[in-house]
Amino acid sequence: MQKYSTILLVGVVVILAATLAGVLVFMKNNPAQERALLPLVEIAPMEPDSAKWGVNFPSQWNSLQKTETNNIDTAYAGSSAFSWLERDPRQVILFAGYPFSKDYNDDRGHMNALEDVRATKRLNLNDEDPKRTPATCYSCKSSNNPGLWEEMGMAEYDAMSFNEMTPNINNAIGCSNCHEAGTMRLIVTNPALNEALEAQGKDWTTFTRQEMRTVVCANCHVEYYFDGPGKYLTFPWTNGTRVDQIISYYEEEGFSDWTYPEAGTPMLKAQHPEYEFFTAGSTHYNAGVSCADCHMPYVRDGAAKYSSHDVHSPLINPEQACGQCHTDVNYVVGRVATIQEQVAVTKIAAEDALIDAINAIQLAAANPNADAALLDQARALHRKAQFMWDFLSAENSTGFHNPEYALKICAEATNLARQAQMLAAQSVNDPSLLTTGTYYTTP
Amino acid sequence: MQKYSTILLVGVVVILAATLAGVLVFMKNNPAQERALLPLVEIAPMEPDSAKWGVNFPSQWNSLQKTETNNIDTAYAGSSAFSWLERDPRQVILFAGYPFSKDYNDDRGHMNALEDVRATKRLNLNDEDPKRTPATCYSCKSSNNPGLWEEMGMAEYDAMSFNEMTPNINNAIGCSNCHEAGTMRLIVTNPALNEALEAQGKDWTTFTRQEMRTVVCANCHVEYYFDGPGKYLTFPWTNGTRVDQIISYYEEEGFSDWTYPEAGTPMLKAQHPEYEFFTAGSTHYNAGVSCADCHMPYVRDGAAKYSSHDVHSPLINPEQACGQCHTDVNYVVGRVATIQEQVAVTKIAAEDALIDAINAIQLAAANPNADAALLDQARALHRKAQFMWDFLSAENSTGFHNPEYALKICAEATNLARQAQMLAAQSVNDPSLLTTGTYYTTP
Repeated sequence: MQKYSTILLVGVVVILAATLAGVLVFMKNNPAQERALLPLVEIAPMEPDSAKWGVNFPSQWNSLQKTETNNIDTAYAGSSAFSWLERDPRQVILFAGYPFSKDYNDDRGHMNALEDVRATKRLNLNDEDPKRTPATCYSCKSSNNPGLWEEMGMAEYDAMSFNEMTPNINNAIGCSNCHEAGTMRLIVTNPALNEALEAQGKDWTTFTRQEMRTVVCANCHVEYYFDGPGKYLTFPWTNGTRVDQIISYYEEEGFSDWTYPEAGTPMLKAQHPEYEFFTAGSTHYNAGVSCADCHMPYVRDGAAKYSSHDVHSPLINPEQACGQCHTDVNYVVGRVATIQEQVAVTKIAAEDALIDAINAIQLAAANPNADAALLDQARALHRKAQFMWDFLSAENSTGFHNPEYALKICAEATNLARQAQMLAAQSVNDPSLLTTGTYYTTP
Repeated sequence: MQKYSTILLVGVVVILAATLAGVLVFMKNNPAQERALLPLVEIAPMEPDSAKWGVNFPSQWNSLQKTETNNIDTAYAGSSAFSWLERDPRQVILFAGYPFSKDYNDDRGHMNALEDVRATKRLNLNDEDPKRTPATCYSCKSSNNPGLWEEMGMAEYDAMSFNEMTPNINNAIGCSNCHEAGTMRLIVTNPALNEALEAQGKDWTTFTRQEMRTVVCANCHVEYYFDGPGKYLTFPWTNGTRVDQIISYYEEEGFSDWTYPEAGTPMLKAQHPEYEFFTAGSTHYNAGVSCADCHMPYVRDGAAKYSSHDVHSPLINPEQACGQCHTDVNYVVGRVATIQEQVAVTKIAAEDALIDAINAIQLAAANPNADAALLDQARALHRKAQFMWDFLSAENSTGFHNPEYALKICAEATNLARQAQMLAAQSVNDPSLLTTGTYYTTP
């Protein structure tokens, strides 16, 4: 009996030792880092189809898909495609002569980017027209881009028309816009961002992961323009990313987006400078908070914890978004409301001042006896004031990303707009151009 | 031997029992609440001499005495008596025709209040002059006031001249300005504050202690004016304490502090509306923070913990002041700097706009053909714009007490000042009044 017990014991010991040896050999051949990301399927470099990445990362992919239908609005914006021109008819006047005065809807979630850019009435699809919409307009709308930029180079991409590029584009914003296949690390994929950072002496490959959780958003959420006849996508960051530095860049380049009708002002349209706005000394940025911390908070699906890719306003899910750091979520949501209300009111006052300036400059420009130098000074201030207002207005947070910066910019824009109006009146020696108004209705 | 031991033991037991009985009798005759405040000396009601209170509360008294010499400056203000007129010569222009254009020094610590009010060149000590300085100017400068108000009533106090009141006043700000003798509870001592709260339907005796740690500061740190020939101290709060509500009050009362020379604008001088500014939805106020939490933080002297009465800027001792709530003191001090820098720049722009408006209104007022209605509209906007700027400028925090409110007010003040200038030019049909400048030097 005892003999059999001994044999059994020895057998168990042998089996255990063999198993352990097997595990150790496996671990040696499969280092920890590799095992952690052992994929179910291989993802090709710059794979445009997010569904393929989704096999390996189902939670992230599921949440990204929610951006197609997450059209919830907040007090001042949100994710539905409401018309800014209907909500604030002043903008019809402010963008007169430019396609934004015809169609300017609020942005929907990432998965709608392709559908929405193709549907906007701002497109000019006549390839014979020198003002045809360039392919550059697809730059922020599709996960096909990283592969296309790699394949043809950005200069060739941007030189094509929107129409010509359309057959190459069949995916909305997705995984490949921010992630490297295989490692899944966050990367700069937009060559324009890479060039803008390099021009500032910055090498994004040295950034921490937390820094990249803000920088990858700058692949798109920035101020940019199309440089030269090749419509080369360019970020105006050479002098820095503050609004005054961006204006000085445009002054040096002599760039303008359009000329304001009957006023003759060379105008600038601001895009969506969330990155520049947030990083200009905002309290959250200075405290080390990234875009993803609030817009892609960590959430749970059963035992799995992942960064939600259902990107939208944190006001939709403040418990998850703000609650990662703030214990008093109701309080901080109230703070956002207080801040945005003050910015919204001050922003409208700036718009009224701008419209007064535009009216005055138009009247002065129609007068053949106008002092050309004074009128040009008026235009220069109009150009600057409206870009400052737009920098704040087009930025998607009603000032919350950087409240004091927003209000300081608003104060300066209003001051400059009033001075533009005064210069226009001086140019024709006519104080009747000094009328002020409150503009609520479409013209 | 054993017999003596027994006797000794019985003796010890008897002594212990007697001691215990004595303690219990003492405790019965001196309930806990009373024992906790058992004073070394009795303090008479409204005792003006803080040194007497200091016998019972040496730590608080010692720290209050430090306000006599705590003249440390911060980036934008502090506790030294530097001249605002030298630091920012624009204010010489803005207060022209009013005593503040002659002498406007920054406030020093509480213990200097009496010396400083007697030394200011703003005083008019000629009692025969109808514009003599009234006794009301002592209202916030002395711990003699609660007793004097009780004794003679505020109306009689305020009807006296500054000169006449001087012999009654021999103590700077002290214990009796905020505390009730005996209970030491925080109380409203200024009848004007009591009346202003009552007019809003508020009963301060129902406030929590934490609320009172802000409200007692409103005994002085508020906007006020001297009503009628009796110079009755009045807080303009009937419509509320926001700047627009205060302006609407003054409009209804038709009150003005002085008339701007050669412009004819009926002006308003803002005092030091810290209470109104801080409580207008600021983040700290909404989070339940009181004035005393930051300006009178709890500190230790050995084993004793007490609220420091060395009141000054929290930027002087951020570890104690901000560190009570914030763990990252360097970070929050950096935030204050960022906010104040933006407010300071925007405030100076408002001052330049106001000076442009004043210049234009003066030129228009000198023109006998000026359109009186338009000129009056210009004056009305000048009055409003300058009070808004002053409400922010005279408030002791360079906007930090409520950053968004400060910048919103600044934006509106600038906008209104520009419109005042434009109306002045329209009133004389002369666009040469539209000159704009940057004013750095004394006139």
